[in-house]
Amino acid sequence: MERKEFRDLASPEEAREAIRSLSLEGGINRVPLSEARGRVLVARLDAELDVPGFDRASLDGYALRARDTFGADEADPADLEIVGEVHAGEEPDVAVGEGEAVEISTGAVMPAGADAMVPVERTTPAGERVQIRTSVAPGDNVMFAGADVAAGERALGPGTRITPRDIGLLSALGIDEVPVRAKPTVGIVSTGDELVRPGEDVASERGEIYDVNSYTIAAGVEDAGGEAILYPHAGDDQDEMERILREAAAECDLVLSSGSTSASAVDVIYRVIEEQGELLLHGVGVKPGKPMLVGRLEESAYVGLPGYPVSAMMVFRTFVAPAIREAAGLPETETATVEGRMAGQERYDEGRLRLMPVGLVTDGDGETLVYPVDKGSGATTSLAEADGVVEVAPETDYLETGESVTVSLFSPDVRPPTLLGVGEDDPTLSRLLDGLDNPRYLSEGSRPGLRRLREGLPDVAVLAGPTDRDVDAEELGSWEREWGLLVKPGNPDRIEGVADLVDEDVQFVNRTTDSGLRSSLGAAVADLAERRDVERHDIVDAITGFDLGLRAHESPARKVLADEAGAGLGLRETADRLDLGFVSLGSQRVRVLVNSDRRSKPGVAELEDALESIATDR
Amino acid sequence: MERKEFRDLASPEEAREAIRSLSLEGGINRVPLSEARGRVLVARLDAELDVPGFDRASLDGYALRARDTFGADEADPADLEIVGEVHAGEEPDVAVGEGEAVEISTGAVMPAGADAMVPVERTTPAGERVQIRTSVAPGDNVMFAGADVAAGERALGPGTRITPRDIGLLSALGIDEVPVRAKPTVGIVSTGDELVRPGEDVASERGEIYDVNSYTIAAGVEDAGGEAILYPHAGDDQDEMERILREAAAECDLVLSSGSTSASAVDVIYRVIEEQGELLLHGVGVKPGKPMLVGRLEESAYVGLPGYPVSAMMVFRTFVAPAIREAAGLPETETATVEGRMAGQERYDEGRLRLMPVGLVTDGDGETLVYPVDKGSGATTSLAEADGVVEVAPETDYLETGESVTVSLFSPDVRPPTLLGVGEDDPTLSRLLDGLDNPRYLSEGSRPGLRRLREGLPDVAVLAGPTDRDVDAEELGSWEREWGLLVKPGNPDRIEGVADLVDEDVQFVNRTTDSGLRSSLGAAVADLAERRDVERHDIVDAITGFDLGLRAHESPARKVLADEAGAGLGLRETADRLDLGFVSLGSQRVRVLVNSDRRSKPGVAELEDALESIATDR
Repeated sequence: MERKEFRDLASPEEAREAIRSLSLEGGINRVPLSEARGRVLVARLDAELDVPGFDRASLDGYALRARDTFGADEADPADLEIVGEVHAGEEPDVAVGEGEAVEISTGAVMPAGADAMVPVERTTPAGERVQIRTSVAPGDNVMFAGADVAAGERALGPGTRITPRDIGLLSALGIDEVPVRAKPTVGIVSTGDELVRPGEDVASERGEIYDVNSYTIAAGVEDAGGEAILYPHAGDDQDEMERILREAAAECDLVLSSGSTSASAVDVIYRVIEEQGELLLHGVGVKPGKPMLVGRLEESAYVGLPGYPVSAMMVFRTFVAPAIREAAGLPETETATVEGRMAGQERYDEGRLRLMPVGLVTDGDGETLVYPVDKGSGATTSLAEADGVVEVAPETDYLETGESVTVSLFSPDVRPPTLLGVGEDDPTLSRLLDGLDNPRYLSEGSRPGLRRLREGLPDVAVLAGPTDRDVDAEELGSWEREWGLLVKPGNPDRIEGVADLVDEDVQFVNRTTDSGLRSSLGAAVADLAERRDVERHDIVDAITGFDLGLRAHESPARKVLADEAGAGLGLRETADRLDLGFVSLGSQRVRVLVNSDRRSKPGVAELEDALESIATDR
Repeated sequence: MERKEFRDLASPEEAREAIRSLSLEGGINRVPLSEARGRVLVARLDAELDVPGFDRASLDGYALRARDTFGADEADPADLEIVGEVHAGEEPDVAVGEGEAVEISTGAVMPAGADAMVPVERTTPAGERVQIRTSVAPGDNVMFAGADVAAGERALGPGTRITPRDIGLLSALGIDEVPVRAKPTVGIVSTGDELVRPGEDVASERGEIYDVNSYTIAAGVEDAGGEAILYPHAGDDQDEMERILREAAAECDLVLSSGSTSASAVDVIYRVIEEQGELLLHGVGVKPGKPMLVGRLEESAYVGLPGYPVSAMMVFRTFVAPAIREAAGLPETETATVEGRMAGQERYDEGRLRLMPVGLVTDGDGETLVYPVDKGSGATTSLAEADGVVEVAPETDYLETGESVTVSLFSPDVRPPTLLGVGEDDPTLSRLLDGLDNPRYLSEGSRPGLRRLREGLPDVAVLAGPTDRDVDAEELGSWEREWGLLVKPGNPDRIEGVADLVDEDVQFVNRTTDSGLRSSLGAAVADLAERRDVERHDIVDAITGFDLGLRAHESPARKVLADEAGAGLGLRETADRLDLGFVSLGSQRVRVLVNSDRRSKPGVAELEDALESIATDR
């Protein structure tokens, strides 16, 4: 098949232009008032009636002719005859003549002949007569018909984004349905045999993974004021993919595809677009996001997003979301930005615009430090741990530590974490964090925690087991944890310690060298070597799996549970929770060290309180 | 009935305390992932599986043993045997031995025995063998199982407000349902015989008005993160009111009542609360909002809002919305505030905290001017024309012109209008405004327009007809409009001019003296007096209804349409639109004058362009 060639990557501005040239706008909806909040009016609404619709008493009292009260005061009240009464919601059955008054309640219709009213507090009724102890002018204490809004007046203009206050005005006009801009409908088509929708079973052994993009992009579409429609997952079946693409194009204002990076999926998309639409652009000079496609598919706009979740979200946010907002009639986001200083040096060599997800942390002086959040392009958690994006120009080779950068926040209501911690993964710590206001914790292990603390990034580092180097930092608090070998329930292999891993045929699962548990295990191995008077590496080589280290505290336990190993390194707490056997090898202290610069941060004080509470619980 | 007595007004802080002492919290909902955006997580979510769930190839290429590539480069590639292939979504059916490689695609499962992969670009396949032109280390181009998130890791903490990025993380973990804080349910009970729900017919002659508060407060509840439930309108039937209050209390976390100010409605509410709950507070020292009630009704919290819409909304916003937000688990609004200078002097004498709705306008220096928006407590449009609220302390007697004040905006996305105009009500002007970005126009009439322009508030004033005084302001543009008498279709009374209003028995409807049409009519009356050689007031006195002036340009026409008058002052355009007869009395120029200080505002330039376009259309 011949393909339209796109030799050079388009510039980000060309990509924006291409999307702008497509029409994403939906039509007009008529929605009931109860669903009008936040919607955008398409037409001017004029008042069709007066508000109020009648001359209305503003208070409880007496309706009368103002001229009958002229000169009246406390000393010399006017004396009028009460000829009737009118309550709110009643049609007056009486008129006011000279020398007469009508009892009237707040909100009631002014009777014919009356041109003012006097509040009850300034009157003294006595039988059929009332003394009026003040004088009033015509119109006093009366809200005239149309004083609030008059029939024919311009009430709300086109393009108004309807607030609760506007709903008040619409209610007053009796309007119970309004014409609003239809939300642009955005069809989301995911492809790729390896993707499984959340909630279904995933077969990891076949390389299946959960479909991250569909729900994430759908939520992004709704954030931008669009209506997301998820189409059934197409797999890699070319006919099915084509059928779903055409169906989405027929039903939606915009079709977004994402998922498979397989060449065959791209082939189908290319073919359908070239047969039934037009491809405007393939490839943009941004990182991540290079493989973006922009085109037209029948009457619908089309954007192909990269398959990797972080890339897909960054491209969506940068290029697609603004176009959806515009089509929805929403004002351009006044992108909330924050100025900060780079917490470390970053190098670049791509020659493409870099969209760098970053996290924020406030230092001791209240200044904002900015650090990149990047676990690699296949990672899905990166963005959940990021607060915004720094755009690094293609010609920038590096950002210096301390260099000032502008962070565009993911949304105006992003709050930087109150506490940033890095270090060991631990169940007690997880519970402590649950009690804090808005913490962020990067469970990278004890070693990276120590390194990052030395570099001055986090507020606290959480360290477990022996550390290579000492650090000059105050301890905020600590707790003990019992560690050892997690074995099958009932310990059928009768493992009693490290020696059995060396001497018996047991598949062992270790933790990574960043973990404090691994350091303690290393010390135990060294002890055994000394006792046996052999080299340390002789012991290590004899343990099957010692070199294979997993990253998180439950991972080895899960290998044992899944019958993929006979023993794993872990905590007693994990063994109890997962109903595994446990062979204790000792206990180690988990220490929370605080960055001396951050001692006075409220989040640090909050953590200190939480640490004290667990100390006294024991 | 005996009532719990509240002798003194509570302070605003006491009112906040009283509401805080009530529990508004709902329970826990489990919502599907597609509805999780914006909801607040109630519990920590830990990863139940590794992401990715297997060691995953990051690129297309060859999986192999890293040690087989040691020393390989372009000049001296390693030569390996291709023993199979693995695609994404497939279980590998081959293992990699020494000197072997397996073709692998991005995202596929690494086959057993392989510990690294080489991208296809650095290889030269030839039949059953492949040349590897680079050396790699173990782990290169492989994303290990759990590298993104590992089973057992803390994924999201309690209290997280779920963003699209969090939905990405939840998707990756296969979670399709999350436990979130239930939205607090807020029942809205409206009372008062005179209230009619929008969409139904209102009988103005009986003093009926549309129920403004129900939908408005419901929208406010939803803005604050609650779920609003509108109960059927109770009227003033005491049994029905009691039944609905009890039903709402049984079903909701909070019951809000608003509407009738009648003593009998308050009696019912008092009785029900005292029998089945507790009244904590009656009356708060704020204006507007004094008659607020706070209490408990069975298991539900209860707040009674004032009946007047502006009062109800101000009390809701100040006292109730923050409590709903808190119960919904949303962070306290970082109330968006704007500093501005008072556009005029304001006096106060209530000794209560004043919640003053204000509008904003940017002056020529980019500074914000603040002006009160207040058409009286019965008005409903006030808030639609306001941008925020200034809190004026009870001990403040006045605010000076130019005094600095802090405006708390109604919501963080409030944008002050791009153009503020004051003056004549006119259909051509309404159309011009429709084409502008975000204008605000106060149709108070020509006279107030001129006065406000002299005081320096608006960007432009729109004047029609003869003006008493001249103003030193540049004209931005103008148009002609034909004015005269609007009469019944076919002009059955054969009215030919002002003389017929004087000589015949015709009920006439005038405009207010603020209107430019009234000024032109005044000139016509003066002419007639001169021609007849009589005093002007002789003419005026002879016209039935000359002194009754209505505020908006269509109001007299509507009186004629409704058969309540034989002639009304108005425009040819209005007569044509409403199919009325028209007797021309002349034409008048409508002039747009610009505040010299605001000449360079973009909104002014936009209006000038629009004015030019209508000038060339003619």
